[in-house]
Amino acid sequence: MKELIEYIEKSTGLSNDIINELRAIALEKNVKKRELILQEDTSKKLQIFVASGCLRAFYKAENGKDHTLQFATKNWWISDYMTLFNNEKSILSIESLSHSKIVIIEQSQLEALYDKFPEFGLINRMNLQNRIAALQKRIFVLLTLNAKEKYEKFIRDYDVFEKVIPNYQIASFLGITPESLSRIRKEISNS
Amino acid sequence: MKELIEYIEKSTGLSNDIINELRAIALEKNVKKRELILQEDTSKKLQIFVASGCLRAFYKAENGKDHTLQFATKNWWISDYMTLFNNEKSILSIESLSHSKIVIIEQSQLEALYDKFPEFGLINRMNLQNRIAALQKRIFVLLTLNAKEKYEKFIRDYDVFEKVIPNYQIASFLGITPESLSRIRKEISNS
Repeated sequence: MKELIEYIEKSTGLSNDIINELRAIALEKNVKKRELILQEDTSKKLQIFVASGCLRAFYKAENGKDHTLQFATKNWWISDYMTLFNNEKSILSIESLSHSKIVIIEQSQLEALYDKFPEFGLINRMNLQNRIAALQKRIFVLLTLNAKEKYEKFIRDYDVFEKVIPNYQIASFLGITPESLSRIRKEISNS
Repeated sequence: MKELIEYIEKSTGLSNDIINELRAIALEKNVKKRELILQEDTSKKLQIFVASGCLRAFYKAENGKDHTLQFATKNWWISDYMTLFNNEKSILSIESLSHSKIVIIEQSQLEALYDKFPEFGLINRMNLQNRIAALQKRIFVLLTLNAKEKYEKFIRDYDVFEKVIPNYQIASFLGITPESLSRIRKEISNS
């Protein structure tokens, strides 16, 4: 929770009133490695903030294939936004990839706080805008970079977590095959 | 402009005050087919609303390859969000694919209106949330569907515009080769 408050305060000071109300609606949780935090097919509308550790949002296709939509590390939010913001049937699951500390807040309760405290609503606007930029960047990367460039960007972005994330998940996040990933890694270590 | 007002009013009524101030900061423009509306490398932070027609945001790579990030039809916003919301160097261009009517508004002026009129800020929040859901959906489609499924979804989503959009742009939007697209089209027309 401290991390969420600090993260929000970085952009602008938060009044004690907001901090207290935020504490009242937020559920702080320590999760173990490989713990399932959100299951597909839930109707719950939750925002999840990562205070420490690493989470993953993924989709398990009918053919068993596992697709990684998002990784979230410290100070990132993660959710099934198609459900959260567009009322679509929930298809993503969210799990922890390492021991993580997370803060879970119901979307409706967060929205009530934005309405009650305009300065908090403003922080949320910045936050939503950042997410839009990040999502467009992800599309940009998927479309324009080749497999090796994607992996190099991944290493820069996720740094220490590269080691805790299984190969098939990194490959599915980059939209490449695990075989391509192995080949690229070998290329890089030989160069 | 009428279209933008109607679009915003659909979610909730807009006061005359907001409508008047919106008119004062918005530039309505008729653009011809293939007109360049926003150029890469601009420092301008603009939101573009499509009242009618079809726009495209694209990236021209150094090797000459053209990548389509987004198509926007009636009632959609389009922009280089990485520049707009994340202060990154602008790398996308935006052009019209058909005769279109658009409304251009400077981001800073829009933000001043959100701050001045909380009810308008609320509409913006919904709008940003919708865009997040749409962008996550686009990533989902890029990662999980095969080339044929992507194209079938494209036809459903863009309907009448399929005919005005050149093949290589559809292919680059779907992240497939123009040759794959031709093959898929042949398959579909033969089935």
